[in-house]
Amino acid sequence: MKRLLEEIINECSHYTKLGRVASYIPELQKANPDNFGICVIDKSGEYLAGDYDKPFTVQSIIKPLILLLALMDNGIERVKLLCGVEATGKPFDAFNYSDLALTSEHINPMINAGAIALCTLIRGETHTEKFERLLSLARTLSGNPSLSVNQEVYLSEKETGYKNRALAYMLKAYKMIDCDVDELLDVYFKACSVEVSCRDLARIAFVLANHGRLPDADRLLIPAEYARTVNAVMAICGMYDGSGEFALNVGIPAKSGVGGGIMASVPSRMGIGAFSPALDPKGNSLAGVKALELLSSKIGLSIF
Amino acid sequence: MKRLLEEIINECSHYTKLGRVASYIPELQKANPDNFGICVIDKSGEYLAGDYDKPFTVQSIIKPLILLLALMDNGIERVKLLCGVEATGKPFDAFNYSDLALTSEHINPMINAGAIALCTLIRGETHTEKFERLLSLARTLSGNPSLSVNQEVYLSEKETGYKNRALAYMLKAYKMIDCDVDELLDVYFKACSVEVSCRDLARIAFVLANHGRLPDADRLLIPAEYARTVNAVMAICGMYDGSGEFALNVGIPAKSGVGGGIMASVPSRMGIGAFSPALDPKGNSLAGVKALELLSSKIGLSIF
Amino acid sequence: MKRLLEEIINECSHYTKLGRVASYIPELQKANPDNFGICVIDKSGEYLAGDYDKPFTVQSIIKPLILLLALMDNGIERVKLLCGVEATGKPFDAFNYSDLALTSEHINPMINAGAIALCTLIRGETHTEKFERLLSLARTLSGNPSLSVNQEVYLSEKETGYKNRALAYMLKAYKMIDCDVDELLDVYFKACSVEVSCRDLARIAFVLANHGRLPDADRLLIPAEYARTVNAVMAICGMYDGSGEFALNVGIPAKSGVGGGIMASVPSRMGIGAFSPALDPKGNSLAGVKALELLSSKIGLSIF
Amino acid sequence: MKRLLEEIINECSHYTKLGRVASYIPELQKANPDNFGICVIDKSGEYLAGDYDKPFTVQSIIKPLILLLALMDNGIERVKLLCGVEATGKPFDAFNYSDLALTSEHINPMINAGAIALCTLIRGETHTEKFERLLSLARTLSGNPSLSVNQEVYLSEKETGYKNRALAYMLKAYKMIDCDVDELLDVYFKACSVEVSCRDLARIAFVLANHGRLPDADRLLIPAEYARTVNAVMAICGMYDGSGEFALNVGIPAKSGVGGGIMASVPSRMGIGAFSPALDPKGNSLAGVKALELLSSKIGLSIF
Repeated sequence: MKRLLEEIINECSHYTKLGRVASYIPELQKANPDNFGICVIDKSGEYLAGDYDKPFTVQSIIKPLILLLALMDNGIERVKLLCGVEATGKPFDAFNYSDLALTSEHINPMINAGAIALCTLIRGETHTEKFERLLSLARTLSGNPSLSVNQEVYLSEKETGYKNRALAYMLKAYKMIDCDVDELLDVYFKACSVEVSCRDLARIAFVLANHGRLPDADRLLIPAEYARTVNAVMAICGMYDGSGEFALNVGIPAKSGVGGGIMASVPSRMGIGAFSPALDPKGNSLAGVKALELLSSKIGLSIF
Repeated sequence: MKRLLEEIINECSHYTKLGRVASYIPELQKANPDNFGICVIDKSGEYLAGDYDKPFTVQSIIKPLILLLALMDNGIERVKLLCGVEATGKPFDAFNYSDLALTSEHINPMINAGAIALCTLIRGETHTEKFERLLSLARTLSGNPSLSVNQEVYLSEKETGYKNRALAYMLKAYKMIDCDVDELLDVYFKACSVEVSCRDLARIAFVLANHGRLPDADRLLIPAEYARTVNAVMAICGMYDGSGEFALNVGIPAKSGVGGGIMASVPSRMGIGAFSPALDPKGNSLAGVKALELLSSKIGLSIF
Repeated sequence: MKRLLEEIINECSHYTKLGRVASYIPELQKANPDNFGICVIDKSGEYLAGDYDKPFTVQSIIKPLILLLALMDNGIERVKLLCGVEATGKPFDAFNYSDLALTSEHINPMINAGAIALCTLIRGETHTEKFERLLSLARTLSGNPSLSVNQEVYLSEKETGYKNRALAYMLKAYKMIDCDVDELLDVYFKACSVEVSCRDLARIAFVLANHGRLPDADRLLIPAEYARTVNAVMAICGMYDGSGEFALNVGIPAKSGVGGGIMASVPSRMGIGAFSPALDPKGNSLAGVKALELLSSKIGLSIF
Repeated sequence: MKRLLEEIINECSHYTKLGRVASYIPELQKANPDNFGICVIDKSGEYLAGDYDKPFTVQSIIKPLILLLALMDNGIERVKLLCGVEATGKPFDAFNYSDLALTSEHINPMINAGAIALCTLIRGETHTEKFERLLSLARTLSGNPSLSVNQEVYLSEKETGYKNRALAYMLKAYKMIDCDVDELLDVYFKACSVEVSCRDLARIAFVLANHGRLPDADRLLIPAEYARTVNAVMAICGMYDGSGEFALNVGIPAKSGVGGGIMASVPSRMGIGAFSPALDPKGNSLAGVKALELLSSKIGLSIF
């Protein structure tokens, strides 16, 4: 497997030249487009290749964890009242919005508006506590207690996240959320700025794939039902408006982030983390998608 | 004329029972739905009926003045670069927005997003100065130096104006505006909270109708070209997505506000201010529209 | 006036090089882009310049006449039940459509969908009779009994009018119309293919401007109220999504057609017909708009 | 398994009272809402319960077969040029349409517009031959050579399918299709009117689940790659704008039809056909969805 991963990194590395590093937050533009790494974890162990330990900010890949914690704190029915699960057919920062109304049906947990809304469902006396509990979940699932916020990216997001502010105020205008927008966005911006590596993503993905359990210990970290829910939601729209294409070509529930990471969960089989910061026009890591496509076809990972 | 206005108030007063006082800002809900007044000013004098001197907040009727000041401070070409003039075919708080872009074509000066954007074009070292200059223009055109902000309404707008915050951040996300959103909205919220009477509106409208000049003195207060521009823009969408209907039934350039006021400018003939806080579903004063319709048909005011 | 018109033709003729002849129907592409004419009719007479007598197909300029006949045959209330009067903020061939419903509010008489719908309200045992009555109205208003259909254009529209077919079937799917789509579109395609000159348009416009009466005789051809209604609707969206701009720059109710014609009605003053087949990106005659702008500013025709 | 299916039919039968039989085609309204059947086929055999052999029209469940045949006749690249694979986030009869353009990105094979477009890619000298080849594929995959068109439903669709005509003409207006619309729709209407039973659907689904092979013989009927493609596309939007919800609650690639059928393919495991004509508001068989949900949770069929 390790050799296979190295072959894949080699074969796909030219794609790192074809994408573009995210520019919407100044801090993200500093990423090195040549970085390219992958990590696979299954019951037999952990396999690494390329820049598997380079840190990058998790960005939208935190969304499955926000959903997971909202589910664990509230149950599925409460979550669904606030946030739908249908694909919007639109870019990551859009509503499926009809000019006249904004309801749970118009958002989903994998787009910004839905993820911001779900942050309000994370338990916590204060917004700081909400974030701490989310970070704690990320640390537990990744088995990496040193996960923490990249302060430069966090401050950069906070300063320039105008569209997220617009989305949050729209949610508030339509009474979908009720709390202070600045404090809520602070949770979201911090959450997106948590620094991870491919290995961290692969570990989290493995827990999702393995019905809530770690590979080594057989301890249940999250309810199997919610692991399945998160996989399903990722399959439907984890790759933004490229989710259908990804289902065809790769066939694995996955979530991408504009930091260049992709977390992919092959149910009952393995967790995968990939990283390459040069993005395709839809905001997904270009070389990362290609690597997953090749891996899926070579060893038959498609769930379809 | 005075008798005619009194007849109209009588004939239309039952409509005050059929509308609903604006509720989106708590403070506006306190308005008395029975209030109903009208004022007409032409070269022969001033005619008043009903609650012509009851104060109410100007709300969206400040938009024509924001446009006017933006024009006077920048000229038409600069204004058009920021803000289009086409009807959006949508409610007052919407964009004519396509999911993928937000440009000047998607907004106009008579809807919230456009008016907020145009506030940035008002000259002034500080946002306070911008607002003071706008207030000063309103005082000059109305000939009423005591026009001032209703603090309760202003604070209520400021506290609850989530959708306007969403619109402003969307404008900022798409780089249509560049300043601090909170300060900008402060200008806008204060501007909407200026308290006026029918008489004030009629005077302002007269200047717009009279090519920039007062009735008594013949002093030019604003360039004739900009008075005409404002009339045209009001005709196209001064009554929100009821502008077409209003053009058919009344045929006078006009702007309404959710405070219950309507300011109507009959080019070369007269200025009219009407007030009744009970609104129709599109946010226009129900009895106010009916009064203007009756007045227009009785003395032939339609420009068409 | 004649000299003024000639000056305007000279001054604006270079604009004929900047537009593009309509290409969506093969037959229209054969138009000569150098053609440029204008005709003004007021109570003092008829003034002509340039290619004032070149024939071209009326295209969308038939829409005001369809509206007029629908009004005369049914009254305003019935017409409004079928077709709204608000601007859509969208191109000529679009709905103001919300994915879930299509109602009278989403269309208006100056866009294709609305005009097609209104054809069903024209009285007539057969669709042939409906068309004949419309043609007859055009002949009466223009005083030109020889107006007739350009067969090549008609057949070309009929063969290639796929979007109009789509709109008509959408209207039928939403039960806004009930008749045979092919027969209905035949009326519409024939109506758009009637050949006119600037002079014909100016005459029709004069009747609209003159409250339903001819200049010479003082005979009432159409009810004054409906003439005013048509003027109002043209002002709101006769120039497609360039109507706001046209209101600012020209300030005259007008309707354009992709054949290159513009019919403009200056209420109580004059009727104007302009023609130049090279169009701007919104589908309005480029040189025609410029000529009207210059004429309006030179002799003060803006109604605002 | 048979007993399990019977239990499920019993447990879910009250849902047949809660939905509504499709009414958009007159002929479909005649369905008996009490009908409720299910059939499961896996390598061990065929299991039946309830009204498993009642015939009903396939309706949208023909879409996966249209996609399949288009793939087999053209390959995936050609298919993708015409038709995207992203969810539209909209009802089955909508475009993901932007007012200004209609491209392959705005449609997908599981909504009407996409399926109609894909019919043009089915090989055949004539439209009759195209349909015959599609019917032949359905017969082969279901192992039922007597599958044929329900003439009443076909004629009813043909007569009343206004929205499909609108969609087809829109496709033609945007040059996405080039053929005669009436002939093309005839293929589509006939295809939707093919009569099947739960057993037929289960057999087709089994081939899709079994990588293109029949259960008994081990003959390859369709390329494994295309079976996987069809499963993926069904997972993304086979259940219209209820696909996300279905992924969460059931977790099986499936396609529903307004005739009341659901065809579900559990990759590598089984094919399922369910039937109950009373629909939920999104157009999916209400009791059918509930039965699949129960079956999936009882024996762990979710792919996530």
